[in-house]
Amino acid sequence: MTPAQEARLAMRKGEWTGPTKHKVPGYVKCNLVVLSKEHAYDFIVYCQRNPKPCPLIEVTDIGNPEPKMSAPKADLRTDLPKYAIYRNGIREDDRTDIINLWTDDSVAFLIGSGMTFDDALERAGVPMTQTWLYETNIQTIPSGKFFGPMVVTMRLMTPQQSIIACQLTGRFVYTHGAPIHIGDPLSIGIDLQKPIVGPSLADIPKGLMPVFWACGVTPQYSAIACKLDLLIAHAPAHSFVTDLIADQLCIP
Amino acid sequence: MTPAQEARLAMRKGEWTGPTKHKVPGYVKCNLVVLSKEHAYDFIVYCQRNPKPCPLIEVTDIGNPEPKMSAPKADLRTDLPKYAIYRNGIREDDRTDIINLWTDDSVAFLIGSGMTFDDALERAGVPMTQTWLYETNIQTIPSGKFFGPMVVTMRLMTPQQSIIACQLTGRFVYTHGAPIHIGDPLSIGIDLQKPIVGPSLADIPKGLMPVFWACGVTPQYSAIACKLDLLIAHAPAHSFVTDLIADQLCIP
Repeated sequence: MTPAQEARLAMRKGEWTGPTKHKVPGYVKCNLVVLSKEHAYDFIVYCQRNPKPCPLIEVTDIGNPEPKMSAPKADLRTDLPKYAIYRNGIREDDRTDIINLWTDDSVAFLIGSGMTFDDALERAGVPMTQTWLYETNIQTIPSGKFFGPMVVTMRLMTPQQSIIACQLTGRFVYTHGAPIHIGDPLSIGIDLQKPIVGPSLADIPKGLMPVFWACGVTPQYSAIACKLDLLIAHAPAHSFVTDLIADQLCIP
Repeated sequence: MTPAQEARLAMRKGEWTGPTKHKVPGYVKCNLVVLSKEHAYDFIVYCQRNPKPCPLIEVTDIGNPEPKMSAPKADLRTDLPKYAIYRNGIREDDRTDIINLWTDDSVAFLIGSGMTFDDALERAGVPMTQTWLYETNIQTIPSGKFFGPMVVTMRLMTPQQSIIACQLTGRFVYTHGAPIHIGDPLSIGIDLQKPIVGPSLADIPKGLMPVFWACGVTPQYSAIACKLDLLIAHAPAHSFVTDLIADQLCIP
């Protein structure tokens, strides 16, 4: 059994309900969006139009919770450590499985996560530190009812590290690719004191630069803004671990 | 007016009905597939599952023939030099516009064409010569009713040129990317004497290697095999010219 398969089994059994960040390094991690087939076409077109925040790793067959291409035999109803449930845009209590919510109309979208390249960054001399999540004033391109601002992750690094990060993540086109911005947060509408996730910041520490990547939470935000009757997502930081090897999914 | 806009205008007026190959170098060229919204979801999932042959550059809004993102103000009903029309999988006479065939239910898919990197290959010392189109025994991953073999383009080059071609086209991930095969045609089921397009070949000339790229004709082949009531495509080699700059769409 591979480390990814072992990890998913532990999650399926409920033995591991914590975040997948820093876990199972080297495997492609994905954000999950489950919605009904009624909304699936507009949503996939939304992803196609916004490939930096919404790189689609896999779309399951309607009603089938198995991601046949990226993790054969996995079950997306049980194999994530924790799920976030939204009804009409409002988050209910998290769950550790979604067996009772999955129907014959359900479609799962796996959207590449920036966690995927953390391990490669580390190997290249850019150690993982704190990351932040921010909403920007960059608008995504709408599709049907889906629209909204791009959400980004922010990492702080030295100028030298930021160059390495641009080089390296530019090769990870299937999991957000190169940064979408570097430097001044305000110029993309970010108030450092108002992160979605991460500690509030008064200012950027001297000698460090903020580097921003399009984030796979963007489509989930859009789907929540649409107030779909039911939207199932991974709980933040509790991404799905695929069998795909991150270094093999990037451009060599 | 840019060279791409001028070219499209000439096509719209019917002043240019020839192939777009070798024309307007440097712009991203696209294969066209138009089908009705009834089939659009299965088809876009087919493209998502087969990104090497079917890189989606744009999907238009249902009923709207304007590719807003890749060629604003263009009209996909008139701005290609020649269209191929298939009814129940059978090709009718070509047309120079599709105004009478486009309906409120029509959706256009623009699929990146390998012609896009010809110019960059030439600049890198790999001059364009003859290309061939072959059907392979590699099966695409099905979605709904769409399935079928991968179609490839073949170029012949020296071993040194083939290395450059791998390096260079690997960066063009949005227009087929790196080759899918190099060397022995038979190992992917190709009979050199039976090309779809190009002269029949007895053998590979000494000193040259065949290099194969996934081809954007693949989804069209699949749609024809499905015998959709109506499928509109570009006529072979008469691709759509977008405003996107090829060198800017690739990984720098």
